[in-house]
Amino acid sequence: MPLEIPDVVIDRLPVYVRALASMERQGREVVNSQELGERLGVTPAQIRKDLSYFGRFGKQGRGYSVKRLLEELRQILGLTREWSMVLVGVGQLGRAIVSYAGFAPQGFRIEEVFDIDPSIVGTKVDELVVKSVDALPEVLRKRKVDIGIVAVPAETAQRVIDTLVANGVKAILNYAPIAAHAPPDVRIKDIDPVLALQSMTYYVKSQDARAK
Amino acid sequence: MPLEIPDVVIDRLPVYVRALASMERQGREVVNSQELGERLGVTPAQIRKDLSYFGRFGKQGRGYSVKRLLEELRQILGLTREWSMVLVGVGQLGRAIVSYAGFAPQGFRIEEVFDIDPSIVGTKVDELVVKSVDALPEVLRKRKVDIGIVAVPAETAQRVIDTLVANGVKAILNYAPIAAHAPPDVRIKDIDPVLALQSMTYYVKSQDARAK
Repeated sequence: MPLEIPDVVIDRLPVYVRALASMERQGREVVNSQELGERLGVTPAQIRKDLSYFGRFGKQGRGYSVKRLLEELRQILGLTREWSMVLVGVGQLGRAIVSYAGFAPQGFRIEEVFDIDPSIVGTKVDELVVKSVDALPEVLRKRKVDIGIVAVPAETAQRVIDTLVANGVKAILNYAPIAAHAPPDVRIKDIDPVLALQSMTYYVKSQDARAK
Repeated sequence: MPLEIPDVVIDRLPVYVRALASMERQGREVVNSQELGERLGVTPAQIRKDLSYFGRFGKQGRGYSVKRLLEELRQILGLTREWSMVLVGVGQLGRAIVSYAGFAPQGFRIEEVFDIDPSIVGTKVDELVVKSVDALPEVLRKRKVDIGIVAVPAETAQRVIDTLVANGVKAILNYAPIAAHAPPDVRIKDIDPVLALQSMTYYVKSQDARAK
């Protein structure tokens, strides 16, 4: 498989997977790039180009087999296996993340949770006992952890990320509002509502200006 | 200002704003695209190209004035004013969103919160009294609301979005795991940790394969 696939293409594949999974549940067997594009707000040309990085999925003029395309994309993204995660930071946000019902059905399991606050360490969140963040390196050495979720305040987030990285974690989901650093072989995705808001205001502002 | 600026460019501008604001706090006066790029994991060419959509900010070989570039980008994105928001869905996630300390300093204010559950309506979250979602249309007609935050379960999310849109809200921050629909003049940004995880697994999976 070529390694130089643009990140924006990889970012769109999970969106395709979600739409295709929904179609499969509805009993749909075939879909073309036109319909998939309309459903997702992406041009059909973009969908065809994205998929072309991974070989030919569709027959000319026949569209894609929903089942086959879904299976292939899941294989490509690594969604056919389970992924183990740890969460650091069990404040209000951390608790909401642990309770989030969307992870487990997709194969993402939070297996350990950590906090720095002695009054939280030892308490339970859902079925998990909160461990001290001091125990994080040891836990990471003992069990294979694929993904670290960082839900600590901005001031301590980079330190937590450094600890995760130093102990072999290669993917980090970062909720702290910082420009996080990591070596090139580590992936970081930021969940940052402020950045999302700040890119929408550009469009709302432009509409307001036109409406005057 | 040209209207055909790609969305991905607009999405990067808030990241530039954050980095420049941090530099300004550190007393930095000038920065070049090389340094800004290294800080953000973007190529210098990409930064120059992104900024070129909005005119010439830097002098050849001299770099950008941190203060001026920051001001211009804030103007472009509409970050020099306050934005009013309502939140629908006051479960664990909704509470974490209300408590999130990152919104207010950037001018984003949650002014009203709504829920469908009669046992929550009337209670307080921080300083806000939770209103019934039945009152949402009336509130939206009475006061100018720029942004709606949707933190309800997937089953009811599209209905909430429709209500927001029908009553004039032009920007929606959606936390529900659905492929949300809205008219073309409404912006929707999804905060979806599963999509973020699913695009990271591609890279981790590839590394695992190479390591074997």
